Amino acid sequence: MLRITYVLAAESGAAAESRARFIAREQSVEVPQGTAPDVEARLVGQVDAVAPGDAGHWRVVVAYEPELVGGDVTQLFNLVFGNVSLLSGVRVVDIVFPEALLAALPGPRFGIAGLRESCGAAARPLFCTAAKPVGLDVAALAEQCYRFARAGADIVKDDHNVANQAPAPFAERVRRCQEAVQRANQETGNRTLYFPHVSGPLSGLDQRLDTVQRAGCRGVLVNLLPQGVDAARSIGTRDLMVLAHPTMSGVFFGAEHGIAPEVLFGTLFRVAGADGVIYVNAGGRFTTWTVDQCRAINQRLRASLGGMRPALPVPGGGVDAERVPYWVEQYGLDTMLLIGASLLRQPDPEAATRRVVETLRGYEA
Amino acid sequence: MLRITYVLAAESGAAAESRARFIAREQSVEVPQGTAPDVEARLVGQVDAVAPGDAGHWRVVVAYEPELVGGDVTQLFNLVFGNVSLLSGVRVVDIVFPEALLAALPGPRFGIAGLRESCGAAARPLFCTAAKPVGLDVAALAEQCYRFARAGADIVKDDHNVANQAPAPFAERVRRCQEAVQRANQETGNRTLYFPHVSGPLSGLDQRLDTVQRAGCRGVLVNLLPQGVDAARSIGTRDLMVLAHPTMSGVFFGAEHGIAPEVLFGTLFRVAGADGVIYVNAGGRFTTWTVDQCRAINQRLRASLGGMRPALPVPGGGVDAERVPYWVEQYGLDTMLLIGASLLRQPDPEAATRRVVETLRGYEA
Repeated sequence: MLRITYVLAAESGAAAESRARFIAREQSVEVPQGTAPDVEARLVGQVDAVAPGDAGHWRVVVAYEPELVGGDVTQLFNLVFGNVSLLSGVRVVDIVFPEALLAALPGPRFGIAGLRESCGAAARPLFCTAAKPVGLDVAALAEQCYRFARAGADIVKDDHNVANQAPAPFAERVRRCQEAVQRANQETGNRTLYFPHVSGPLSGLDQRLDTVQRAGCRGVLVNLLPQGVDAARSIGTRDLMVLAHPTMSGVFFGAEHGIAPEVLFGTLFRVAGADGVIYVNAGGRFTTWTVDQCRAINQRLRASLGGMRPALPVPGGGVDAERVPYWVEQYGLDTMLLIGASLLRQPDPEAATRRVVETLRGYEA
Repeated sequence: MLRITYVLAAESGAAAESRARFIAREQSVEVPQGTAPDVEARLVGQVDAVAPGDAGHWRVVVAYEPELVGGDVTQLFNLVFGNVSLLSGVRVVDIVFPEALLAALPGPRFGIAGLRESCGAAARPLFCTAAKPVGLDVAALAEQCYRFARAGADIVKDDHNVANQAPAPFAERVRRCQEAVQRANQETGNRTLYFPHVSGPLSGLDQRLDTVQRAGCRGVLVNLLPQGVDAARSIGTRDLMVLAHPTMSGVFFGAEHGIAPEVLFGTLFRVAGADGVIYVNAGGRFTTWTVDQCRAINQRLRASLGGMRPALPVPGGGVDAERVPYWVEQYGLDTMLLIGASLLRQPDPEAATRRVVETLRGYEA
């Protein structure tokens, strides 16, 4: 059974159990009791446990038939936080999958080991940066990519706001940025990868991925939530590595309602097929998350999970280039630091990039 | 300019203005000041207004260059509530589009008039019901469709939990449910439409839509948020009508953080290309929304918006078959009532469906 743990706001244990039963029915068969008795007997979610939590809150576990999901990532998200999102005071804090369901779901196609191999980094932390801002023309973005690659960043990605805007049309940008990175690699012997941002119209996704593969790119950046939760799996089927961007994900992080960050990023994004999961780092310009919150995400991305590959944690959103050793100490070697703005703020971004690269190469045993 | 109105939590007007400037930069160029002066001068969002709101809250307007969005629905959602979702105390309460951007965005391809014409209902309210629950086999679902169609429902849709599970595989279900509805129409002279649920793997969406069109269906149901915000547009390009399901949307409706329901459903889902927008009705089993909240959604779906067609409001999630006249009085004739569970609860769902149909036909002038 697929077991989801919720923290429910309720006035009593009995009220919590009643809410749990409502959710168990809503998220499975979604019909009144007695409508289809045979189906209900087989498929209605079962309330497994109700335990008191913080004042006014109960921790409940509901077990669902994996058949409801099959291997379909859109139905997985629908089961975990679909109609239940329209209630209030419901927070998903854990999901435990049965082995057979894990085997049916995508998971990372490359994962940590695949990303490491592609970047030629056996053990050290990895380092990703971004070509930006939107509005620069293709030549300027390609020049940024060239400099970041010459300095030895592992991955140079497009900014997630850069799509197909007039100054840098998608196909031309992908070709020229990839060409710039390859040129830098030939000059330096580095193995920098360029990951273009591929979010956009669904009906053009295949064509964009054709462009990416024709250019010789090995992976992409995708805005997983606006693009669609199945996007990582779909892209993965083409043997491209997938870096998932967290844009729009903050809507899930209500104090009383939503999905805990470590479950959304650490479990769901991994199960959905992301090889690397970008999230907003503690102390950055976004949330007020603690280092422990980020460690909880990392732990789930890397933990044993059936036969599923570990995915690479990618903290970003205000990681300071000067504090690389601090973050490596906090998060360990199986981490990719996403450092963007902090490099662009320097008088010489290429030199600043090189300093980060040198620091990180020091961790290669 | 694309103008977004936010309600921001802040301790003072100056703090609100500072937050607004942060958001304006983050949601546009996302680089520190001075990184790319020419681009910044052209593309950084501009704070247009800061006005006091409820205690501790300010209402601010930021104007963005439409070039950031182009006609790309994924970038529209990214601009409206992408990285900003990872802050707290930010709520989008209005969006005003420039004409040129409206012309570039999809909007409904059929809208209210198109749905009315397909159903042969010139002026009366429309009526949608659902074949369910997940777990029934194809024969049982097709039999439900047949009975609902024989009774004269305007649209019979799949339940949004029904995807490609073993008891009712997608292609077989679509063929047989559509066949059942057409058979009923031939027997009765009704013009019921069957809208299959097409959410699922992105890489199979085209193939599923081929199946839908080969079967002769005129429209579909899609879980817009898990499937991807561009799904309505993509489906629309195939000349299929799109009914958008609100699953997962509740994450946006924080009291202090997110997007106001009338903006998400009434503006964004319409602009994204939904012909009909399902939302959770007042007094139903989900939210505690008031009738006024629902009216605000309806108003935006129907209001003049450049040259964009109006979209049909579809309140559901606990609409009682006995209270049809009440809801028509509240919402007016340009409404489609989604009545599912309330019919299935009756001893004779077909007879209950027929009563709703007769009531609604009474509104045809």
